[in-house]
Amino acid sequence: MSTTAGAGVDPRALEVLFTAARTPSRWTDDPVTDEQVAAVLELAKYPPTSMNTQPMRLLLVRSPAAREQLATMMSGGNGAKTRAAPLSVVVAADRRFDEEVPRLFPHLPDARGFFADDAFRERTALFNTALQLGYLILAVRAVGLSAGPMTGIDAPAIERAFFPDGEHEVVAVVNVGVAAEDAFRPRGPRLAFDEVVRTV
Amino acid sequence: MSTTAGAGVDPRALEVLFTAARTPSRWTDDPVTDEQVAAVLELAKYPPTSMNTQPMRLLLVRSPAAREQLATMMSGGNGAKTRAAPLSVVVAADRRFDEEVPRLFPHLPDARGFFADDAFRERTALFNTALQLGYLILAVRAVGLSAGPMTGIDAPAIERAFFPDGEHEVVAVVNVGVAAEDAFRPRGPRLAFDEVVRTV
Repeated sequence: MSTTAGAGVDPRALEVLFTAARTPSRWTDDPVTDEQVAAVLELAKYPPTSMNTQPMRLLLVRSPAAREQLATMMSGGNGAKTRAAPLSVVVAADRRFDEEVPRLFPHLPDARGFFADDAFRERTALFNTALQLGYLILAVRAVGLSAGPMTGIDAPAIERAFFPDGEHEVVAVVNVGVAAEDAFRPRGPRLAFDEVVRTV
Repeated sequence: MSTTAGAGVDPRALEVLFTAARTPSRWTDDPVTDEQVAAVLELAKYPPTSMNTQPMRLLLVRSPAAREQLATMMSGGNGAKTRAAPLSVVVAADRRFDEEVPRLFPHLPDARGFFADDAFRERTALFNTALQLGYLILAVRAVGLSAGPMTGIDAPAIERAFFPDGEHEVVAVVNVGVAAEDAFRPRGPRLAFDEVVRTV
């Protein structure tokens, strides 16, 4: 049987994930537990990646010292946002994701050899980590939390401090928590259909 | 009022978007209409991008001649998959997304100047297009269709044929339609929580 054909998704779910959800500027004091993070990952792990590579790695920054260190590595107002958030998650692309490929894509012999070229491997890591970040942001919303993703960061500094193996590319920091009242600024404009879509 | 705090999302929606959805290998003959594509975009346009840049562009490949041309530019079995799908959508990153930034991010004076460096601008286009592709795949599922994303493609050939301005980087082709019965192969393994997440 088809899994999704004709599926009617609850309109409230579409609001929570897509149309009414916003990036908050303020948070309540409610903590984000490891169990909530696990619930997010239990959703975000399933949508597809290229050859099932799954290169996204997450660092939960929980200790006060690490939180303060991270906050100094953010651009503009992002440091203050990071200090104020219940949880900050560093999102990184694992350039050595290929080590797991024989296990993750077992039906193709020598699937790992597909990623022998360094530039192609690193691009695959970046592209699929961004793809998985899209899934992650919507999964955070799906469990009743809000996500505040930021790419205005000093990625090389965060890599030196928290990923000393030199094999991870930091791509974003995502603050996670329960949005405070009045946490939302007016939403920016979105491109119109005809600005995004052509037909041939 | 907080938009998402405490939101309980219908469990069926989580199955349709995340946990039960799959990438189909076969499709029914049901067409995918422009109205359905518009409904997908009406969801996918809202989740966040860096500085609201929204660099993802879509080409709906509908004419038989264009479909056949595209199919010859796919790797391995992806050509046959593309010939068989109700609709194939080429996903491209617009390297000149910065032309729209003054309109899309109006509260930062000279926001466009932020993207003056070509390498940074092109990386921003790629990263945010992948992020938006994540939103797009889940939005396709949300309207009751299935998505078959493919990165095994001859991107330069597709760019030459369909994006002659030289300012678009093709990143994926996504087949879209209603999944046929028995369209699904066994799902590949997913990384465990402790393989993805560290805490500091």
